Amino acid sequence: MIEFLTDPTAIESRSMDIIAPYLRDLNLSPQEIKVFSRIIHAAGDPDYASIIRLHPEAIRAGCAALKAGCHIFTDVEMVRTGINKRKLAEHGGEAHCLVADNEITRLAKTQGITRAMAAMRAFGRRLNGAVVAIGNAPTALFELLRLMEQQEIRPALIIGVPVGFVGAAEAKDLLIAKSPVPYITVIGNKGGSPIAAAAVNALLYMLDA
Amino acid sequence: MIEFLTDPTAIESRSMDIIAPYLRDLNLSPQEIKVFSRIIHAAGDPDYASIIRLHPEAIRAGCAALKAGCHIFTDVEMVRTGINKRKLAEHGGEAHCLVADNEITRLAKTQGITRAMAAMRAFGRRLNGAVVAIGNAPTALFELLRLMEQQEIRPALIIGVPVGFVGAAEAKDLLIAKSPVPYITVIGNKGGSPIAAAAVNALLYMLDA
Repeated sequence: MIEFLTDPTAIESRSMDIIAPYLRDLNLSPQEIKVFSRIIHAAGDPDYASIIRLHPEAIRAGCAALKAGCHIFTDVEMVRTGINKRKLAEHGGEAHCLVADNEITRLAKTQGITRAMAAMRAFGRRLNGAVVAIGNAPTALFELLRLMEQQEIRPALIIGVPVGFVGAAEAKDLLIAKSPVPYITVIGNKGGSPIAAAAVNALLYMLDA
Repeated sequence: MIEFLTDPTAIESRSMDIIAPYLRDLNLSPQEIKVFSRIIHAAGDPDYASIIRLHPEAIRAGCAALKAGCHIFTDVEMVRTGINKRKLAEHGGEAHCLVADNEITRLAKTQGITRAMAAMRAFGRRLNGAVVAIGNAPTALFELLRLMEQQEIRPALIIGVPVGFVGAAEAKDLLIAKSPVPYITVIGNKGGSPIAAAAVNALLYMLDA
């Protein structure tokens, strides 16, 4: 068998060293580097360096909200699973997801919409002041944008990185073009639950610094 | 607001149509196309078409084991979360993960190894005849390869797609070179929990066909 690193701290530190050169020419702040690095680490894909889009107020707004104990609302259970909920709870927050809820399933079926979309609608005004993390479903992000436009819902931060070939790129373009609140996103088809969780956790780990 | 698809079945079907051209020249069987498509769909990344490696017996062995009610063992909770556990249970299987177990955390700390590695070790002989799905930790895959070599543990199928820049590519190369059992993997740094879950679910959905 070959030799390999088994110490989690050493693995993470070595990984960040390998990622650093990909970020060198991007003019990022030390905090922005942390968000970019965690995302690239989660995807194993340095191409994310050129597609991540951080609203200039995203880190400040997200950290302030999380520090004040805001809750996090996710589109799918995988995002919620990937969030460091112990760290979140230290500041008073909890992570919520309704996609597997029986009533949401019923509503989605009745209305012919996705469960992630029905779940976002059901969160409603609870999204005010919260961090919303969407890692899978473009429809959840479209629905959030509609709630912001039509009901003046105002999250503190939107981490919107739905993935795929049907609506994901469009939903994220619309987030960048129209969001009245700060966002973290990636343009194009890529994204996913680990990307959303990585962005959330990057912010959570900053709160200790 | 722009128009977007909201019917889950229509979204999935449209997505598979968009992915199909990327697979055209790969000489895949209809079942292999399903595995490739679900992985590419989960990553939003057609580049996976050229890095997925399917052992010739992988689909047959995985489907036979799942149909017979085998259990699935995962390295991290995100993989377990992403697996369609309702579908798995229809055939008698359950999905297990120990990475968040208190005793595993204690063992990992005492021994200076990752929790995913300690968890794989703890599964031990329960891995015989099972499907093992590793979506995050290279150390879990290295440990599984060691268990196969030193203790003659024999899963029915290994879905080994750990992600990242420290050990992931090496662990997957070793899986391809040394595994005594069928595998599904991707070469290089890419991978992740959604990729592992997508491969598992592709097999589970085949059981109905």
